[in-house]
Amino acid sequence: MDILKTKSAMQEWSKKKKKESKTVCLVPTMGYFHQGHISLMEKGKPLCDELVVSIFVNPTQFGPNEDLDSYPSNIENDLALAKKAGVTAVFLPSKKTVYPEKFQTEIKLQYLPGFLCGKFRPVHFSGVATVVTKLFNIVMPDIAIFGQKDYQQLQIIRQLTLDLDFDIKIIAGNIIREKDGLAMSSRNAYLSKLQRSSALSLSKSLNLAKELIARGEKNPVAIKNQIETFICTFPETTIEYISFCNPKTLEAVDSIEHQVLLAIAVKVGKTRLIDNALIDHPAQ
Amino acid sequence: MDILKTKSAMQEWSKKKKKESKTVCLVPTMGYFHQGHISLMEKGKPLCDELVVSIFVNPTQFGPNEDLDSYPSNIENDLALAKKAGVTAVFLPSKKTVYPEKFQTEIKLQYLPGFLCGKFRPVHFSGVATVVTKLFNIVMPDIAIFGQKDYQQLQIIRQLTLDLDFDIKIIAGNIIREKDGLAMSSRNAYLSKLQRSSALSLSKSLNLAKELIARGEKNPVAIKNQIETFICTFPETTIEYISFCNPKTLEAVDSIEHQVLLAIAVKVGKTRLIDNALIDHPAQ
Repeated sequence: MDILKTKSAMQEWSKKKKKESKTVCLVPTMGYFHQGHISLMEKGKPLCDELVVSIFVNPTQFGPNEDLDSYPSNIENDLALAKKAGVTAVFLPSKKTVYPEKFQTEIKLQYLPGFLCGKFRPVHFSGVATVVTKLFNIVMPDIAIFGQKDYQQLQIIRQLTLDLDFDIKIIAGNIIREKDGLAMSSRNAYLSKLQRSSALSLSKSLNLAKELIARGEKNPVAIKNQIETFICTFPETTIEYISFCNPKTLEAVDSIEHQVLLAIAVKVGKTRLIDNALIDHPAQ
Repeated sequence: MDILKTKSAMQEWSKKKKKESKTVCLVPTMGYFHQGHISLMEKGKPLCDELVVSIFVNPTQFGPNEDLDSYPSNIENDLALAKKAGVTAVFLPSKKTVYPEKFQTEIKLQYLPGFLCGKFRPVHFSGVATVVTKLFNIVMPDIAIFGQKDYQQLQIIRQLTLDLDFDIKIIAGNIIREKDGLAMSSRNAYLSKLQRSSALSLSKSLNLAKELIARGEKNPVAIKNQIETFICTFPETTIEYISFCNPKTLEAVDSIEHQVLLAIAVKVGKTRLIDNALIDHPAQ
């Protein structure tokens, strides 16, 4: 497994592989790997000749009051897990490599960031769009894999790829959950024991909504009210949003007539957690 | 010479050439070729195996009161001139190909567009940055050539290429002038006979400044005053800006101590003309 720390080293590596007609798959990450990350690598492995993982905690996607400084990290463990997952190269740049002095370019999408997390994290998605564009140009992958837990991010990257004409296939990885249902996240490491049990309110809310919809409930407001009441029974929870929306445009739906995305963001203590599910209408 | 009208056709063409280990050079244009465009093609020809010219009048770089609808066009003549210049492929997309429905991504630079033309054309350079990023991803060139008449655009594209990590070498083409000094521009076609002679005020101002600087003048304000007075003697001229600035950052300079960029924008009738020169300090 090669470890590449500069843009030019990574680009040269990828260009060499491409000259050998090898296909490259990229799994962009912020490190501190859990089974969610590993599943993305496992998904990519059979699809390509060369599996690249990038590890970079991207400062431009954190707001001023967010957890950039405390974001968990364990590079040594990440490298061991990546190797075990069959990764052939890790791109591990410094902040200065990614954002040298006089860096001044930003990529923004007009509509998709206006919903869900974007409302609460105003700089987040332009930070994501910009760093992903950079990673695409540095790693030059044929395929890139993003987890579906960050559903809005996935949609934004699909649109970005289309809009900027990247010749890259975007593949979604399923949400990976703990045995009790909690969606895996590096941020789960922040949770106290009590908060850890309150964190279950998210996945349980998704299940509650699935049941209600299966029983014929079409009114998103009615379901949201039930979920709100349900989440509030868990200690230390503060709901940020509960949204039933169109899975492509992310616009809120008035009535559940087709497949919908239910996306939830809850603060548990100071830890912001998100979860989501694509829920089919029972008639489908 | 191949003519490619869709993104995918162009990408497939370039990927095929790259598989054959051929280098690709791109000259992005808005068409209506004059000797300035041809000189860029001639500059690119010996540097690559495949010379691609794109012709696309990019709507997003025109402001609401600008000349998008009247921008001159002569595709048949352009294709003949491109062929003669040794171009091997022309990318000739429709607006819908470049900007399909739901397109929503925009690229902005923070500092460089705040000077010179950017002050008068607020949407211009984000339109340029976005379309150039798209063209880079569609044509996938090893080299791209831009004319130095659009000096600010050239600097913005250099910065964009660096910031977004494009593995593309940016090359500048010299300003090409008519015999009497007028910088070649597709917009010169708009000028009446009287306006055509007033248009000479730009290149003559550059020469005036060069003389003054060669004689030891270091004060940009003194030179600007002389140029202003000079340009006003030409009928139908309205000065937009006269700026002595740092050739890299485009920031105005207080004193001419090193090489400076003198950039001028003047409206002649309704036609907006620009010209510039890099002027060395006599001590250099």
